[in-house]
Amino acid sequence: MILPPAVERLIELAIDEDLGRGDATSDALVDADALGDARIVAKEVLVLSGLDVAARVFERVDARIEATALAQDGTRVARGSSVMRVRGPARGMLGAERTALNFLQRLSGVATLTRHFVDAIAGTRARIADTRKTTPGLRWLEKRAVRDGGGSNHRADLAAGILIKDNHVALCGVLGALERARARGAHSLRVEIEVTRLDQVEAALAGRADVILLDNMPAAEARKAVALVAGRALVEVSGGVRLDNVRELADAGVDIISVGRLTHSAPAVDLSLEFEHEPASG
Amino acid sequence: MILPPAVERLIELAIDEDLGRGDATSDALVDADALGDARIVAKEVLVLSGLDVAARVFERVDARIEATALAQDGTRVARGSSVMRVRGPARGMLGAERTALNFLQRLSGVATLTRHFVDAIAGTRARIADTRKTTPGLRWLEKRAVRDGGGSNHRADLAAGILIKDNHVALCGVLGALERARARGAHSLRVEIEVTRLDQVEAALAGRADVILLDNMPAAEARKAVALVAGRALVEVSGGVRLDNVRELADAGVDIISVGRLTHSAPAVDLSLEFEHEPASG
Amino acid sequence: MILPPAVERLIELAIDEDLGRGDATSDALVDADALGDARIVAKEVLVLSGLDVAARVFERVDARIEATALAQDGTRVARGSSVMRVRGPARGMLGAERTALNFLQRLSGVATLTRHFVDAIAGTRARIADTRKTTPGLRWLEKRAVRDGGGSNHRADLAAGILIKDNHVALCGVLGALERARARGAHSLRVEIEVTRLDQVEAALAGRADVILLDNMPAAEARKAVALVAGRALVEVSGGVRLDNVRELADAGVDIISVGRLTHSAPAVDLSLEFEHEPASG
Amino acid sequence: MILPPAVERLIELAIDEDLGRGDATSDALVDADALGDARIVAKEVLVLSGLDVAARVFERVDARIEATALAQDGTRVARGSSVMRVRGPARGMLGAERTALNFLQRLSGVATLTRHFVDAIAGTRARIADTRKTTPGLRWLEKRAVRDGGGSNHRADLAAGILIKDNHVALCGVLGALERARARGAHSLRVEIEVTRLDQVEAALAGRADVILLDNMPAAEARKAVALVAGRALVEVSGGVRLDNVRELADAGVDIISVGRLTHSAPAVDLSLEFEHEPASG
Amino acid sequence: MILPPAVERLIELAIDEDLGRGDATSDALVDADALGDARIVAKEVLVLSGLDVAARVFERVDARIEATALAQDGTRVARGSSVMRVRGPARGMLGAERTALNFLQRLSGVATLTRHFVDAIAGTRARIADTRKTTPGLRWLEKRAVRDGGGSNHRADLAAGILIKDNHVALCGVLGALERARARGAHSLRVEIEVTRLDQVEAALAGRADVILLDNMPAAEARKAVALVAGRALVEVSGGVRLDNVRELADAGVDIISVGRLTHSAPAVDLSLEFEHEPASG
Amino acid sequence: MILPPAVERLIELAIDEDLGRGDATSDALVDADALGDARIVAKEVLVLSGLDVAARVFERVDARIEATALAQDGTRVARGSSVMRVRGPARGMLGAERTALNFLQRLSGVATLTRHFVDAIAGTRARIADTRKTTPGLRWLEKRAVRDGGGSNHRADLAAGILIKDNHVALCGVLGALERARARGAHSLRVEIEVTRLDQVEAALAGRADVILLDNMPAAEARKAVALVAGRALVEVSGGVRLDNVRELADAGVDIISVGRLTHSAPAVDLSLEFEHEPASG
Repeated sequence: MILPPAVERLIELAIDEDLGRGDATSDALVDADALGDARIVAKEVLVLSGLDVAARVFERVDARIEATALAQDGTRVARGSSVMRVRGPARGMLGAERTALNFLQRLSGVATLTRHFVDAIAGTRARIADTRKTTPGLRWLEKRAVRDGGGSNHRADLAAGILIKDNHVALCGVLGALERARARGAHSLRVEIEVTRLDQVEAALAGRADVILLDNMPAAEARKAVALVAGRALVEVSGGVRLDNVRELADAGVDIISVGRLTHSAPAVDLSLEFEHEPASG
Repeated sequence: MILPPAVERLIELAIDEDLGRGDATSDALVDADALGDARIVAKEVLVLSGLDVAARVFERVDARIEATALAQDGTRVARGSSVMRVRGPARGMLGAERTALNFLQRLSGVATLTRHFVDAIAGTRARIADTRKTTPGLRWLEKRAVRDGGGSNHRADLAAGILIKDNHVALCGVLGALERARARGAHSLRVEIEVTRLDQVEAALAGRADVILLDNMPAAEARKAVALVAGRALVEVSGGVRLDNVRELADAGVDIISVGRLTHSAPAVDLSLEFEHEPASG
Repeated sequence: MILPPAVERLIELAIDEDLGRGDATSDALVDADALGDARIVAKEVLVLSGLDVAARVFERVDARIEATALAQDGTRVARGSSVMRVRGPARGMLGAERTALNFLQRLSGVATLTRHFVDAIAGTRARIADTRKTTPGLRWLEKRAVRDGGGSNHRADLAAGILIKDNHVALCGVLGALERARARGAHSLRVEIEVTRLDQVEAALAGRADVILLDNMPAAEARKAVALVAGRALVEVSGGVRLDNVRELADAGVDIISVGRLTHSAPAVDLSLEFEHEPASG
Repeated sequence: MILPPAVERLIELAIDEDLGRGDATSDALVDADALGDARIVAKEVLVLSGLDVAARVFERVDARIEATALAQDGTRVARGSSVMRVRGPARGMLGAERTALNFLQRLSGVATLTRHFVDAIAGTRARIADTRKTTPGLRWLEKRAVRDGGGSNHRADLAAGILIKDNHVALCGVLGALERARARGAHSLRVEIEVTRLDQVEAALAGRADVILLDNMPAAEARKAVALVAGRALVEVSGGVRLDNVRELADAGVDIISVGRLTHSAPAVDLSLEFEHEPASG
Repeated sequence: MILPPAVERLIELAIDEDLGRGDATSDALVDADALGDARIVAKEVLVLSGLDVAARVFERVDARIEATALAQDGTRVARGSSVMRVRGPARGMLGAERTALNFLQRLSGVATLTRHFVDAIAGTRARIADTRKTTPGLRWLEKRAVRDGGGSNHRADLAAGILIKDNHVALCGVLGALERARARGAHSLRVEIEVTRLDQVEAALAGRADVILLDNMPAAEARKAVALVAGRALVEVSGGVRLDNVRELADAGVDIISVGRLTHSAPAVDLSLEFEHEPASG
Repeated sequence: MILPPAVERLIELAIDEDLGRGDATSDALVDADALGDARIVAKEVLVLSGLDVAARVFERVDARIEATALAQDGTRVARGSSVMRVRGPARGMLGAERTALNFLQRLSGVATLTRHFVDAIAGTRARIADTRKTTPGLRWLEKRAVRDGGGSNHRADLAAGILIKDNHVALCGVLGALERARARGAHSLRVEIEVTRLDQVEAALAGRADVILLDNMPAAEARKAVALVAGRALVEVSGGVRLDNVRELADAGVDIISVGRLTHSAPAVDLSLEFEHEPASG
């Protein structure tokens, strides 16, 4: 699927919120038959994500606009690179511009930040994964941006993985929770459990957890946990992961490092739509 | 209106993308009749925005959940403050938790960053305004968060203001563009024009612009522009505004300082849902 | 944008409400592969508006139908003129016919009535504007029809202009209301205030209103108000405007005459779909 | 059902198109906790329709608003009558006002015009019926307004009746069309056929039509047709029906008179929201 | 109309529920540019229905997929027959496969079962009709499947026919109900009444019912009812109709036999998507 | 969550398709203020599922209707049992009746059939699971019905599990596919692979599959496979499972038996709405 139905609905919301009542400026100043030829240009080094969404915004605003990617999602491009060419009726191009860029600058921001984390742990066995701390409505797009940045995805939603957290443990205990999860959960899902102390790791192993999540554990502790697990489960670490401490965690031997800020705090990257020359009558 | 229809649709998208196929973990581990009592707690100093959206998420997931705000949007709260109490069926609370927090952490992030900018120019005549560089689908919410942070809103959408940019000027010239905008635009809208050089300010005034936008102009230039305008139009400055240079721009005497990063790059603030005690059967 | 998302949704509602369960008659009588060739013909003199919507209805009902405009929106056409050619599968054409015509007859009705008002004030400085008294769901289309008739648009929605009415004045007084609106409203919006008596005009000017709306004021009064304002604000008149008194108001020197009946009471104009010959098997 | 899903969607479109980005004026001037108490007042004699839709608009804008009908749909009310009381948060009331009134003024306009037609044929056997020439998106509401005015409904949509028109007759002939319709159409539907000449009436009867529609036939012709049919089918007349000729048609003895202008050209009636006193802080 | 708006919405729901978060398997294993060439093959003898919906599913998942019907809805095909060819990007084909087949296997199941009933009464005057006992959301598609199987449709919805049932009779009596229905119902609808005993048939005829529905009446009783009616109304029989008793009912001389199980209990037929060879890079 | 957003949309589609244009019969025969009191009664032994959906249908049609479950989903009830009481405005009850029952009879049909399968393997280690062969739009509801019948769910959608099928194996081989799936898939998902021959089981084990799916394998073969696997992976069997062979498969020692017919071919069970007495004016 190019874009799932929910993304199409989000695009519709986005177009509507900016252009739904028309463009007071361009409607007054730009002739209805004026044509434009423009490029989206990266104003800084960045990793691309969301070119198809940006193109889709232009097309939905006016089906006569041709938006052609000049690079691929997942690519790191230099400052000044043209990443998309956009041609067609100028009013539609100006009307779609902001919405298309808003998608692209945010998603590429996520991909770019992810790449920094991935680069920081190069050569280790760990992978960088996202979390469910995504922007409301943009889950699918942001998780794809993480992959474009070289990261992995954690569960897509609450149905695509079993993750036993402290509240669940409080209810049934570590062993009880693991047993219940294995008995009642879909057999297609791994059973993961969050622990905060090393002694819980033993219990998790006893309960045959598939994945053990070390919550907010410093690298030294994580290293001990990895030794304790000894390959009997996957080991994930999460909480407080930053660019300046991620390498240390990876070196501790964990399998997965999940990072909330990939999606909840990635700064937008800078891109702009630049007309080859001013729009002219067609 | 508490929340406009488009925000309700976004909330629906957000709930669906996380909880639309159910919660594999809680469905397996938490009894259907277990009840919970929890609070949303600020894990850092922050300015609140979006409490009603967070509450709405809980209610839409299960109408029996009561989510009561313990503070008000627009308030700066201390680390450790409880900002919302949430009580009701535990499964629904756990299923809605992430979505509700995703809204709250982002919107409060916008409000918090805005407050920093507003505080930085305290005592000047300028106001901090947002831009249309908002997250797709979250325009209304983010613009409200800017107000919660003490900022002002720029135009709500392309129909709620006339802003003549370089591409428009290239088409018709400064005077031509202004004349056309006044003749064809709705009389309820001010006519604003973007300039990059001081000599264009004169032309803008000659064309009776209501607002003059100084694009990426350093404070010294802005000060000259303000002097030149001498009250005949509002003066706005935009482009490259950061916390470390915003005061200088405000001191130059401009009326409005618009800041893209308020919405496109505000980091999320940290909030969490903490159960008073583990969920228990009702 | 050709048609904004909300108009697409309205078109969907309109097709669904007529054809959503199929066409009991044509399904029984017309062969699935029968083709038709027809024209939409004006049965009276009228100003066109909504040809693209009519075409879109045909296309959404069956993508194989070609609907080609033979005239342009905003044009006054003679009785008997063909304004659109429609060719393709006959069942779809018959099924879409009524919905397409329902749009076209109403929107052209709005454009036609607007043109009468515009013609009535030819040579004066005034412009004819619409109001927010539009048909629910058809706001964008009807406002475009007003432009097709030669009129201007008042604010697109409640966010695209500040209009202080009697209830607002009752709350804060004329000066208070104007000051608050200027301080809190978006700087992209003009501030307009409604007055019912001449003495309020003075207060409005003192409060630096951008536009003064004379509510239900007879032409003689309006003339005095215009003299009083003396170019310091735009002057709008509204309320009880009819074809037989609009010239008098325009001659009073006002800038804008807004007319509710353009959209709330324009009678439909008569158009019909006429087959060149009966649909035949393809 | 109070209001079907499609009407709820239309209400959502209508609220969104006016209030979707907020209310620039009331947001600036009216305190968030100000309360209002107002009535919707008829400014002319009219027949009510759509009170529940108007109330629903207020409720959807702010669930705390109480909108209570003071009269019933289908009632003729005097000028000056209060027809609904509206109380609650003043911002929401002001924000919903125009949308609620836009529904009510149009639907009551349809009911009022229908009542004039119904009154004009009082004492005859005929009933006044609507057509499918309704406002796109408002079909269900306008057909209900016709009933509120005392009229009857023609088929709800293309699936709720078989009506053989000239194009169908051109394809299969009168007898062929009737036979095919009876054989293939749902047995729950009557078979109606449109004729333009008296000789076609004979053929229609021979083909056992359930209803014969006389298209654009003057009263004298209609009378002959009625005599010819002699109770073997229902007789409907349509086309060019006005208040000044409807009695004559009814006196000709027809069973149904269908009138397009009931829905496509009914002028709006005048209603306004009047505050008891200005909104005040709660 | 190829597919009405509500069916498009259902298709969207169906794609979203299977593929809305992506395809974890194919995303990991199939290259993004791999192409596939496959056929949908009937694994048993069946009557086709829904080929266009299946094709639409593929197209909506990826517009580059070509899905071409190799047979027509309404045709009985042999086991092993290819009924559709599907070519294009392999990921999209694999992602759409299940959803497309789910539609096709159910709708063809309805058509196939209908054909069995239709064949069972061949040569009699009766027609097999469906009921309103359809799958929620699939009404239009299932009723079309019944036609594809050679059956007739009962009323499309509650607005497309008047059917007086026991509860209505309990309220107003047979005569009262019939009179009221004729007076208040749309003249485009036949008036049908349900009876359970022969003596009610007389009353129904006295009240001039257009159709008399014999509820759960055995063939012998039905035969008496037909004799009693003697052509003055259509006679329908419903309730407990199975393949082993339908012929007997048809032989009793009734006009319509309506069968709930056509839509509520038709077993799915078996179809599968078979790749010509494994998907390969394009 | 009581019902996820997509189920609410399906309910809306279902109400709209039956009642969207009103109820021609009840509107004519039942007074607007008549009240009813009725029960939904099981007409055969069945396992309940979907009571909340049925109740929601009544409530959405008229919020004044009270629908109270008298039994619980997942319960087997006797013929003649009352399972829901429904009280309120009679028109709404009659208008919602068919839609509510259509949901309940289908979902309870799924639960009932599932229970038969579950009972048939009582005492074995196997669990009965569903497949993705669900009715389009009803996935969530039907999977819940399977749980109500005592079954387990296979993956919720294509994102909630990795299942390598023959086409994937054809592309990369068993080992290659497993390795790629483990490297690229989310770590929250088990990796399952479908095999058709015993020798593939060895390869699957070598590639460290978490689950091995035996496709269309007879019980004797399945038993050998189970022995071969010897607890190193879960073993699932699928294809051609019927009530008369399911025990044999369970006795072979497999962990999961997945059965397509649970959802694609479950016959509806019989339930009806019975009024205590006829609706009466309130």
